[in-house]
Amino acid sequence: MFIDEKEDKKYTAAFIIIGNEILSGRTKELNLNFLAKELSNLGIELLESRIILDKKTSIIRCLNELRKKHTYVFVSGGLGPTHDDITRTSVSKAFKVDLYRDQDAVSMIKEHYHETNNKVLSETAFKMAEVPVGATLILNDISGAPGFKLKNVFVFAGVPEVMQAMFNYAKLYIKSSDKFISKALHVEVGESMISFLFGKLQKKYNDLELGSYPVHHKGKWCSNLVVRGKKLTRINQAVKELEKKLFKNKIKYSVEGVKR
Amino acid sequence: MFIDEKEDKKYTAAFIIIGNEILSGRTKELNLNFLAKELSNLGIELLESRIILDKKTSIIRCLNELRKKHTYVFVSGGLGPTHDDITRTSVSKAFKVDLYRDQDAVSMIKEHYHETNNKVLSETAFKMAEVPVGATLILNDISGAPGFKLKNVFVFAGVPEVMQAMFNYAKLYIKSSDKFISKALHVEVGESMISFLFGKLQKKYNDLELGSYPVHHKGKWCSNLVVRGKKLTRINQAVKELEKKLFKNKIKYSVEGVKR
Repeated sequence: MFIDEKEDKKYTAAFIIIGNEILSGRTKELNLNFLAKELSNLGIELLESRIILDKKTSIIRCLNELRKKHTYVFVSGGLGPTHDDITRTSVSKAFKVDLYRDQDAVSMIKEHYHETNNKVLSETAFKMAEVPVGATLILNDISGAPGFKLKNVFVFAGVPEVMQAMFNYAKLYIKSSDKFISKALHVEVGESMISFLFGKLQKKYNDLELGSYPVHHKGKWCSNLVVRGKKLTRINQAVKELEKKLFKNKIKYSVEGVKR
Repeated sequence: MFIDEKEDKKYTAAFIIIGNEILSGRTKELNLNFLAKELSNLGIELLESRIILDKKTSIIRCLNELRKKHTYVFVSGGLGPTHDDITRTSVSKAFKVDLYRDQDAVSMIKEHYHETNNKVLSETAFKMAEVPVGATLILNDISGAPGFKLKNVFVFAGVPEVMQAMFNYAKLYIKSSDKFISKALHVEVGESMISFLFGKLQKKYNDLELGSYPVHHKGKWCSNLVVRGKKLTRINQAVKELEKKLFKNKIKYSVEGVKR
């Protein structure tokens, strides 16, 4: 069997971003791009992302819909100790299990706090040690307070630094597959000039994903043509054919390296 | 009747972002924060946003679910002339109406193209003149090719400059209500130190939205406490009470101006 012929497992994911502050426009969303790149590298297809309010019914409905559909569901936001942090309760309600105070999590919070502060730790901090029954803790060095994993659902804090640390730890529990790779050509014409030839190419290479993205710079329109898939030899084949067609049509272009 | 007592209409919205390139991590999402701020200023509650693939079945399902739930649904992405631009077809299928080539849209595309180019316009450019039967064109000066509105659904291009121009034009058709306003206090302690007092305040001011957001800077944790609503007098009242409580607990803070 050739290496290119080995069967590739198909893993999919969804990302639920919880936060009133993102939907009100107060805070810019900063976790999606990080997660999208990481999953692409792990060969996992991120099929959708939803940004929802800190509202129990919305979280429960959304989580129960998506966890049945995907290999993994990632959730971020709402893990803090204030009244508007309701992700823990909502996840446990979605799974119909109780919340309990995890003693390992209590120790982690105490330890981290004593290392960075002199003051007395407020009792409310231990709200961050509550996790649903059956959950596995997801550690992080930045805040000390852990996230958790329950079946195929990973729950992270919303602060980007902490979310990233938690994701890196969570990789222990994530199955990966051949990574996605892509090559991009930048062409110096607008999309309507390449639409026909690029569309024909997609039909021929229907095992790859060919995407065209308009770029507007100083009043001039160009296009980025992206060829994405899991097999480099196949991607190279499509890119070579695309290059030939562009050359034949006298369209200027430049090739990017192998990128995500 | 006092001005504060006038009945305020409740308008809600959802935002569907269409684009493989965002879910693959290739492109950063740049339209959500713009739309969130604009809607907040128009007094419209953005209740959710979904990022989905350029895939007909996903677009149709998502659109039909959300357009029944909200006053407005905004859609961005997939309006170009290439094979992966399938938003027009998907929207018309969701509404069960035909697509047709709109002659006003054809003129706009021709006019814009002739102003900015010398070359012959490719026939495929007119794919961008196709809109569902019953749609109203949403004009923009940047690309020339219009978006459209069909009932309570607004469809914009994905390129941020063009999306923003289209939204500004679309305001003609959007009902507004009292704008959302908010005040924020920055406190120099982590969330667990204010969790109890802030939670009590939320219970008292249950007509306002009180949110706490952790800030991590150079190893130190602080919190931003946000009070949001539509009535400035009421917001000021809550902020004054919050300030008193912080002062009493010897917690240092600073007040931001009136912000979104």
